[in-house]
Amino acid sequence: MADILHRIGATAPLEKVYDALATCDGLAGWWTTGTTGESAVGGTIQFRFGDTGGFDMKVLDQRPNERVEWEVTDGDPAWIGTRITFDLRREGDDTLVLFKHEGWREPGEFMSHCTTKWATYMLSLKRLVETGTGTPYPRDVRISGDWH
Amino acid sequence: MADILHRIGATAPLEKVYDALATCDGLAGWWTTGTTGESAVGGTIQFRFGDTGGFDMKVLDQRPNERVEWEVTDGDPAWIGTRITFDLRREGDDTLVLFKHEGWREPGEFMSHCTTKWATYMLSLKRLVETGTGTPYPRDVRISGDWH
Repeated sequence: MADILHRIGATAPLEKVYDALATCDGLAGWWTTGTTGESAVGGTIQFRFGDTGGFDMKVLDQRPNERVEWEVTDGDPAWIGTRITFDLRREGDDTLVLFKHEGWREPGEFMSHCTTKWATYMLSLKRLVETGTGTPYPRDVRISGDWH
Repeated sequence: MADILHRIGATAPLEKVYDALATCDGLAGWWTTGTTGESAVGGTIQFRFGDTGGFDMKVLDQRPNERVEWEVTDGDPAWIGTRITFDLRREGDDTLVLFKHEGWREPGEFMSHCTTKWATYMLSLKRLVETGTGTPYPRDVRISGDWH
């Protein structure tokens, strides 16, 4: 098993970063504008990226201003059964986001692509909470010609 | 042991991307302007980031238009002994870069930070070979208040 890890700090209140991770409106502001569903624990959130499909995530945990955890229940086979966690804490003037996408069965090219792509979305999250405007799909940063 | 993996595609010739990885001038254009040393196999490259120090890398392998591999010989203790590899190949209109920073003893917060930070440098490399201008240190993208 292999994991994708990221760490980013945003100069924004803990509550604001948590809202961007724990509500569909917040998620639509930095990951994909195609975010719908039920973001409370036990609910399922649908993330869609136009014609290329997307993912369904079951919300496993939500602790206000601390943690959000999802399990991938539908989408690319490489993602199904993996878990995504965001842990938050204050550090100086920053709200730190510790991101983990864990349980990859194969640390291959697709995981490498997703690692880089997640970084662009973490930067989008930072921009959203600091400036009010992120770069969610379809305004996301393209990192290659073949896999977007 | 844990590894950092990235995958990025640049609309630029293989030779241009290889030069950006295999020469000090090229590396200074996307990673840090403080790049000096001997970039041939067996040589050591010094990467410096102003007052915060930097890394020495021994060049283990260089295969024109295919691969560059380094071993970290000095710098942050977490990096010493780790290896960094760039594998290149053509895919459609892109030159693909498969990046690996392998041999981390602990998949902790510092590795998470370095994963995100490497992504910003991969995007800088892409920008350099596509447009002629990257964002190497000290013009690099700051991702947190505490760890730059």
